[in-house]
Amino acid sequence: MRLTAVACATAAIMTAPALAQTLDVAALRDAALKDEIAWNITEGLTTEVGQRLAGTEAEARARIWGLARLKALGFSNARIEPFDMPVWVRGEETAEIVSPFPQKLVLAALGNSGATPPEGITAEVVAFPSLAALEAATDAQVRGKIVFVDHAMGTTQDGSSYGAFGAARRKGPSIASQKGAAAIVIRSIGTDFHRNPHTGVQSWADGITPIPAAALSLPDAEQLKRIVARGKPVSMKLVLTPRNIGTRQSGNLMAEVPGRDPKAGIVLVGCHLDSWDLGTGAIDDATGCGIVAAAAKRVMDAGKPLRTIRVVWFGAEEVGILGGKAYRDAHRDEKHAILAESDFGADRVYRFDSYVNQAALPVVDRLAAALAPIGVARGNNAARGGSDIGPLAATGVPVIALRQDGTRYFDLHHTPDDTLDKVDRTQLAQNVAAWTAMIATVANEPAELGPVAPTGDE
Amino acid sequence: MRLTAVACATAAIMTAPALAQTLDVAALRDAALKDEIAWNITEGLTTEVGQRLAGTEAEARARIWGLARLKALGFSNARIEPFDMPVWVRGEETAEIVSPFPQKLVLAALGNSGATPPEGITAEVVAFPSLAALEAATDAQVRGKIVFVDHAMGTTQDGSSYGAFGAARRKGPSIASQKGAAAIVIRSIGTDFHRNPHTGVQSWADGITPIPAAALSLPDAEQLKRIVARGKPVSMKLVLTPRNIGTRQSGNLMAEVPGRDPKAGIVLVGCHLDSWDLGTGAIDDATGCGIVAAAAKRVMDAGKPLRTIRVVWFGAEEVGILGGKAYRDAHRDEKHAILAESDFGADRVYRFDSYVNQAALPVVDRLAAALAPIGVARGNNAARGGSDIGPLAATGVPVIALRQDGTRYFDLHHTPDDTLDKVDRTQLAQNVAAWTAMIATVANEPAELGPVAPTGDE
Repeated sequence: MRLTAVACATAAIMTAPALAQTLDVAALRDAALKDEIAWNITEGLTTEVGQRLAGTEAEARARIWGLARLKALGFSNARIEPFDMPVWVRGEETAEIVSPFPQKLVLAALGNSGATPPEGITAEVVAFPSLAALEAATDAQVRGKIVFVDHAMGTTQDGSSYGAFGAARRKGPSIASQKGAAAIVIRSIGTDFHRNPHTGVQSWADGITPIPAAALSLPDAEQLKRIVARGKPVSMKLVLTPRNIGTRQSGNLMAEVPGRDPKAGIVLVGCHLDSWDLGTGAIDDATGCGIVAAAAKRVMDAGKPLRTIRVVWFGAEEVGILGGKAYRDAHRDEKHAILAESDFGADRVYRFDSYVNQAALPVVDRLAAALAPIGVARGNNAARGGSDIGPLAATGVPVIALRQDGTRYFDLHHTPDDTLDKVDRTQLAQNVAAWTAMIATVANEPAELGPVAPTGDE
Repeated sequence: MRLTAVACATAAIMTAPALAQTLDVAALRDAALKDEIAWNITEGLTTEVGQRLAGTEAEARARIWGLARLKALGFSNARIEPFDMPVWVRGEETAEIVSPFPQKLVLAALGNSGATPPEGITAEVVAFPSLAALEAATDAQVRGKIVFVDHAMGTTQDGSSYGAFGAARRKGPSIASQKGAAAIVIRSIGTDFHRNPHTGVQSWADGITPIPAAALSLPDAEQLKRIVARGKPVSMKLVLTPRNIGTRQSGNLMAEVPGRDPKAGIVLVGCHLDSWDLGTGAIDDATGCGIVAAAAKRVMDAGKPLRTIRVVWFGAEEVGILGGKAYRDAHRDEKHAILAESDFGADRVYRFDSYVNQAALPVVDRLAAALAPIGVARGNNAARGGSDIGPLAATGVPVIALRQDGTRYFDLHHTPDDTLDKVDRTQLAQNVAAWTAMIATVANEPAELGPVAPTGDE
């Protein structure tokens, strides 16, 4: 029996290269450079549903749409796993300089913003060139005023400037409220110069009273900065009437390519189905859903993989990664071989990072070889989860991160301008090719990719 | 006496080259490549006034602002010539697809649009790929419906696609109304892909009943086109509540550099001070006002010119060239040596055309020599007036047209995105250099530039 077991193990070890030859990852990858599945999903979802704010009836329509699409593509076990969530919705939003230079400004409420009375509020503006400057201000400087926080976010290919400057949105409102501000307007966390404000979530710190909080478009933020620089007191009228509408249902949508060996663990490939409400969520994140589904479909059509591939279109990512947390809570006891997520637009993959056990690095070698021909460089082995896979990844699950070119991403992110016309079809297909090569490789590798140390930094 | 007269004429002929040498047009031109006057006017007007819709209190503030600025620059005879006009103002404007794919669309009312009831109208959409297709439609196809007119405007350096495709805006509403449409939405007359609709004037043909008329942003027009292409009936809800507020005052603002010879005729350099209401009118046309004033100031500071230079910041151009017509009516009996206008943004001048008497072509030769070193090529002698100088030019007055690069112009034209950040300061200064060279040349040429045949095609 022992001999048989060894023979079986040897056979298993032999299977991988044998299958790899049968599978021809390079051919699959190159065929995906002409992919149209991802485009069709992106075009369909953004056209037939449009915006998909978490917890709303539009997001529910998107799940129904997605369920039908994933079934039509031939995936197994397509299903929705619902969860409840509190829902905040946008109302009216207008701003104007009352004096010294009367004019309207364009802005959008940030997620969870408090509301003004319907007739608005009028207060003096106090401007800060950075979040740090607001933090350093005394309560007396801020009390009763409309705080304006500027910042110096610039374009980065890897999106790192979002992490660095995004705190103005994430923390600014709580800090302003704590100091007694009447409201806060920030320069949008973005890199374009269009009259399209960048919304985004922010959460009130414990014990902090919500105040009206909004983002000015970049041109409007620069206009306000110039007006303030004239040195006269600036009075602003602000009308923001968002509201919390209570508990509603969101859900994660998933579908599978069943593997030959249930014990080999799941290859989870994710995106998020919800979007902000201003655009149609084309690059954030309809393209991500198109990419992972298209790649999984291509691997499925090439023959049953060793590992089960699970496509997850997460719900309610934008408003606090609620889908990712619900998934972690429901599925943490299942064996996940690897997690990967596409949520950074549709421009080309230029690099990949991994987070696998040192013993599994030969798998990463093979992945690097499969990706290099389409311009994807090997990065480090210190990848962390993206947003949706973050909660589960933090518990100690291997990760592959295919890094997309984010140079244009924060021109569009969370704005009315996130629409289908921004998607470059050639780069979208390159993403599908990279994902196809990645899934084909890891779903057919019998080698364990973990264990990895839990990072706990979801 | 006769001998004296001949001697004087000879002296006058000699003066031009002599002065030209003193003046050193090339040095003036090159110094203007570092101009900051035009930028400061543009920055000030867009920041301290902002939008300047014709006939409104904002345009009146702009005249006061401009009068003070032109006086401060040292011009003579700075004054406002008021005129009355009917004023139309924007109200609420929202649109949504009710079925089959519920979602909001972004649009802006066109000038003189009719209004829906406050609660809006809901009707079926009937789509046409071009204005010609709408023209060919039967009344039965259109009656009671919301007409959608698409078109294929592309980018052109000289802006000629605006003339070709702009008829969808100028004529579409009247044609739709005549056929019994409930309303009309057009694809914005523009070349960008941002969620910023392009407004613009349209006038109802005689006897035509105003209907709600608006422009969808380009991404929204493409979205509607995709939705219609699904083949299901499309129902749209439209709320547009603009209104006519009656007669108000606009005015032309002007200032002068008095010339040595009042009989030599006026060199008129113009722009328009009013703007559409969605942006701050940076490239349309604050930059034009900055360019002509900066260039005239530079020539003024170089010594008293032969001819009087008159800077005119016209009012109420956008809504029907009302300032240009008022100017023609008030000043047609004055001798104008030449007319020139800057109203095509702030990107570089790449060519110039003229419309002068054949006998005056040597002046154009000298102008060509002065402009060539900064990349301005000589064009034809068939220039016509721009919008504001059009009415007077049509009566038979010589014209110089400095052609600006319009490649980006219709990305921004009449949109919320026409803001200061779009102005390229290097190209703006090149404009000032070209205008300085042009004004310095023609204001010091004693040769008659006319007569020219009236074109009558204002």
